Amino acid sequence: MTSGFDTNLPSVRQVQSIIKAQKRVELKLLTGEVLSGILRWQDQNCIAIIDDSNQQTLVWRQSIAYLKAFD
Amino acid sequence: MTSGFDTNLPSVRQVQSIIKAQKRVELKLLTGEVLSGILRWQDQNCIAIIDDSNQQTLVWRQSIAYLKAFD
Amino acid sequence: MTSGFDTNLPSVRQVQSIIKAQKRVELKLLTGEVLSGILRWQDQNCIAIIDDSNQQTLVWRQSIAYLKAFD
Amino acid sequence: MTSGFDTNLPSVRQVQSIIKAQKRVELKLLTGEVLSGILRWQDQNCIAIIDDSNQQTLVWRQSIAYLKAFD
Amino acid sequence: MTSGFDTNLPSVRQVQSIIKAQKRVELKLLTGEVLSGILRWQDQNCIAIIDDSNQQTLVWRQSIAYLKAFD
Amino acid sequence: MTSGFDTNLPSVRQVQSIIKAQKRVELKLLTGEVLSGILRWQDQNCIAIIDDSNQQTLVWRQSIAYLKAFD
Repeated sequence: MTSGFDTNLPSVRQVQSIIKAQKRVELKLLTGEVLSGILRWQDQNCIAIIDDSNQQTLVWRQSIAYLKAFD
Repeated sequence: MTSGFDTNLPSVRQVQSIIKAQKRVELKLLTGEVLSGILRWQDQNCIAIIDDSNQQTLVWRQSIAYLKAFD
Repeated sequence: MTSGFDTNLPSVRQVQSIIKAQKRVELKLLTGEVLSGILRWQDQNCIAIIDDSNQQTLVWRQSIAYLKAFD
Repeated sequence: MTSGFDTNLPSVRQVQSIIKAQKRVELKLLTGEVLSGILRWQDQNCIAIIDDSNQQTLVWRQSIAYLKAFD
Repeated sequence: MTSGFDTNLPSVRQVQSIIKAQKRVELKLLTGEVLSGILRWQDQNCIAIIDDSNQQTLVWRQSIAYLKAFD
Repeated sequence: MTSGFDTNLPSVRQVQSIIKAQKRVELKLLTGEVLSGILRWQDQNCIAIIDDSNQQTLVWRQSIAYLKAFD
C-alpha cells in the first residue's frame, strides 16, 4: 500500500481484502467497458488488474463506475 | 460509517437513513446504467448496493448521477 | 442548509431562492437526461428534486450540466 | 463577483469583460450541447446565461467544454 | 501567465513554449471534438486557442483529452 | 520528474519504470480512443506519448481510463 491513501475507508479495506483473497472481479468503467480478472494492488490513483492472459492493466480510479467481486 | 466523511450533510444523512430503513433504491450512473437493490453501506468514495441475487456492487460515488428511494 | 457549504455564492443563493419560491425547474444532467420538478433542498454534494408524482430524486451535483427555473 | 473566486485569472477576467460588454456567446457543454446568448454573471461554480427569449440558464462550470464570444 | 498556477510543471512549460513558438496544434476534447489553431495563452482553468478565421475559443482544461503540436 | 507530484505512489513509479524501459503501451482514454506508442515523460497533469511516426501527444491525466504496457 502507499503514503497519503486512507486505508481506513471501508471501500479501500474491501478492495484490499478482495486483492488478498484473489477473488475474480468485474470492473465497470465510465466508458461502459468491463475489465475482468484478479486485482493485483491499489494506490491513491490506480488499481492494477491482471486478466486471464496474465496481462496487467493499470486502471485510473477516475474511470471506475463500479466493482463486483465473485466468490 | 468512516473517518473524514461529513456525516452532517443532509445528503449523507438521507443515504444513511435509506440504508437503515433498507428501502429499495435505483442508482442512476453517469454511464446511463441503473442499479437497483438495497444500499448496504457508504463511505467517502463508495456506496455498496446489494441486488436481488444478493450480489454486492461497490459503486464509486464519482459515477453517480442520482438516487431514488422507494417506500 | 448545511456546514462547509459556501452559501454566499450567487449560484447557491439563487438555488436557495428557487427552493423558497417553489419554482418549477428543469435540471439537465451530463447524461443528457432532464429532470423536471420542484427543488426541495440542497447541500454541498446534492440537490433534492420532487417530481409531479411526489417522488424525490437525490441528484449528485457532479452530474448537473445546467438548471432552468420557470416563473 | 463573489468571495473565494480567483478574479485575477485571465480566464475569469476575460469572462468578466465578456459579461460587461454583453457580447453574444456560444457555450459548448461536455454533453455536446451548445447554449447561445448573453452572459449575465459568473461565480466559482456557475455561469448564468440569458437566451433570446430572456430565459436564464444556470450553467455548472463542470459541464463547460469551451466558450466563444462574438463581437 | 498567472498567480496560483504551477509553471514549473513540464506540461505547463511545454504548452508555454508551444504558445511562444506559435506552433499549429490540435486539441482533442473529451467530447470527441478536435479544435485546431494556434494557442494564445493559458491559465489554471483555461487555454485560449485562435482558429484560422482568427476566432478565439476559451477552452476549459477540464474538457481536454490531449494536445498535439506540429512543427 | 517534477515538484508537487507523489513519486512514491506505486502507479507513478510503475509509469516511470515503463518510461525507462521504453515499453510499448496502449493508453485507453475516457473518449474510448486508444493511443499507442512509447511514453516519454509524466508529470502531475499529463503524460507524453510518442507514436510510431515520432509525433508527441500530450495526454491530460484526467482523460485516461487505463494503461497497458507490453514487454
